[in-house]
Amino acid sequence: MSPNPTPARGFARSEFETRTAKAQALMAEAGLAGLLLMTEAEVYYFTGFRSLFWQSPTRPWFVFVPAAGKPVAVIPEIGAELMRRTWVEDIRTWAAPTPADDGISLLTELLSPLNGAKARLGVLKGHETMLRMPLGDWERLRAALPGLQIADATGLVQGLRMTKSAAEIEKLAYICGIGSATFARVPEIVAEGMPLDAVFREFRREALSQGADDAPYVVGAAAEGGYADCISPPGITPLARGDVLMIDTGCTWDGYYCDFDRNWAIGTASDAAKRAYDVLWRATEAGLAAARPGNTCRELFRAMSQVIAELDTSGGDIGRMGHGLGLQLTEQPSHMESDTTVLRENMVLTLEPCLSYGEGLMMVHEENIIVGPDGGVLLSTRAAPELPVI
Amino acid sequence: MSPNPTPARGFARSEFETRTAKAQALMAEAGLAGLLLMTEAEVYYFTGFRSLFWQSPTRPWFVFVPAAGKPVAVIPEIGAELMRRTWVEDIRTWAAPTPADDGISLLTELLSPLNGAKARLGVLKGHETMLRMPLGDWERLRAALPGLQIADATGLVQGLRMTKSAAEIEKLAYICGIGSATFARVPEIVAEGMPLDAVFREFRREALSQGADDAPYVVGAAAEGGYADCISPPGITPLARGDVLMIDTGCTWDGYYCDFDRNWAIGTASDAAKRAYDVLWRATEAGLAAARPGNTCRELFRAMSQVIAELDTSGGDIGRMGHGLGLQLTEQPSHMESDTTVLRENMVLTLEPCLSYGEGLMMVHEENIIVGPDGGVLLSTRAAPELPVI
Repeated sequence: MSPNPTPARGFARSEFETRTAKAQALMAEAGLAGLLLMTEAEVYYFTGFRSLFWQSPTRPWFVFVPAAGKPVAVIPEIGAELMRRTWVEDIRTWAAPTPADDGISLLTELLSPLNGAKARLGVLKGHETMLRMPLGDWERLRAALPGLQIADATGLVQGLRMTKSAAEIEKLAYICGIGSATFARVPEIVAEGMPLDAVFREFRREALSQGADDAPYVVGAAAEGGYADCISPPGITPLARGDVLMIDTGCTWDGYYCDFDRNWAIGTASDAAKRAYDVLWRATEAGLAAARPGNTCRELFRAMSQVIAELDTSGGDIGRMGHGLGLQLTEQPSHMESDTTVLRENMVLTLEPCLSYGEGLMMVHEENIIVGPDGGVLLSTRAAPELPVI
Repeated sequence: MSPNPTPARGFARSEFETRTAKAQALMAEAGLAGLLLMTEAEVYYFTGFRSLFWQSPTRPWFVFVPAAGKPVAVIPEIGAELMRRTWVEDIRTWAAPTPADDGISLLTELLSPLNGAKARLGVLKGHETMLRMPLGDWERLRAALPGLQIADATGLVQGLRMTKSAAEIEKLAYICGIGSATFARVPEIVAEGMPLDAVFREFRREALSQGADDAPYVVGAAAEGGYADCISPPGITPLARGDVLMIDTGCTWDGYYCDFDRNWAIGTASDAAKRAYDVLWRATEAGLAAARPGNTCRELFRAMSQVIAELDTSGGDIGRMGHGLGLQLTEQPSHMESDTTVLRENMVLTLEPCLSYGEGLMMVHEENIIVGPDGGVLLSTRAAPELPVI
């Protein structure tokens, strides 16, 4: 089990009051009369409504955050019982699925006062967002409310979510502890000759035993001397002596994710793999030192890149060297040249340096951290300084 | 383990050729010059590209199905290696994330011949779809290609996906077998006094042991005399004598889902719960008989409703009594009054009758079936005819 005590599930009501008040202050600054949200992370963030039912694409779910007062839920009747357990009071439901009118009349009624006032409604339409409702329904809603102006509230909402509260950090530390305990067991549950899909299956079972609610993201690779790809599902090839094995996992607890990986050599490690590992380990050290308030994501990226340049100046093909972490496996910001987000205390981030080496091989390291006053504070148990051999 | 032999992973190339040829024939009928797809199920369906990386919201993925020829992939560079293992040859990549241009220039270039021709591009904008790219990027793409007309291809694509090939049915039968074997073990792994979150955790571990790639959807409830809700995450309340326990699961194998549930009484069953169970079991029998080619989803719904009316005429609050099943936990069609989809052989469906009883209690049964020439053929092992007591 995780070395941390199990936190309480859910949040105190004050957590949602604070989040909503902060959003409303930013909405006032931005001249927004409301926010219309429809994605799992945002609905959970503002209401506390958490369900695996999001895996079904059949039904849209909507939450409206007004300029003042509590959020309003416009949701399928099947979710009413669960939503009534949250702090939300105004819950409007319909008998979804109703393809001809899946919440659109209810939304039109709710938003029509804004339509008359020619007010601006914030929706998430920027980077890392999606429209989790049928595009045709969105067009119908727009047509029904021609006076309503739509503004992009992506930065407002992502900016709020980037900095974590004490209660969020407690959950993140807990799931990172579970992830670390699971990785620590890998040398015991994995052996030469074991097919990679069995490795993944045992890893998932172990993460559950360690206390994870689930281990939805388990990816990786294993191949002679190193791997060439880091997002594939597992094959059935048995682990062989000389392989480098990488497992990257996103485990969850109470809706919060860890996201980090570990590398091992099976039986013996090549000099090239050992060298790649060492460079990435030191790149992570540089990232930890640079993850301090006031630095930008660009500076954090450069700090890691500078070390990686000892071996590889290509920049890799992952596109960035880490990201935000919380209610989603990957959140804003991104550690890359073009991201000038200024780090603030209590942001929770991954550090994910990667490099290319040899004949088309790659290696990725990853740790989870909080931005502390003097640099990154580890939530994951630090990877071994040298490539471990199983 | 599942009673069925483990099928081969992936599909023969002919499977993708057939799917694409069928889509192109329908596109020709509908006057579509291409399809632009961006959701996990559709990308897998036409290319064979399967990755857990969809869990990260950071990067959009696009597949274009032209009027003739193979699909074209427009994807982040991080996915190129995996996409090269599929039958797709034209793979265009960019170094995502690049918030300023996440594939939009590449899409504009690819689609510009259609723009000049004032052709119609099919996208999924109807029921059960979402726009899995930033809305702002979609608007920019539209503005860059003002001559392009957008048509809704939801029915075309969902219609194709509804009827399963022999290879798909083999995978679905396999994962339904694993689900059945997992449910069969529940009386051994569950006992009075066990907290519900531990029940869920052990269920997931068992599903993995039985051979599931994952058990992403495990929901349910347990309460005295019956439960009031069927989409909640588990609480920590221990199972008590007199509870009705329901577990509903979507387990996956090679990208395909099972989706069915089971009910048990802990220690003893009330007459009301036994009666509700009996009515739902017989409603499922009626559904099995009605699930024959030529009948509509409405007729299937009515066949089950007629039995349920013995106890409950409210129609329940789930909104339908089953749905399609395949690459998604829930797919088209929906067994409800408003769905007049005509059943065809080799559709794979859930039968999911539910009812309300007592003081705000509900019960749900669910089985997975294929539409056979003479009615529904079970993929799940049929639930016991009487409420089992643990």
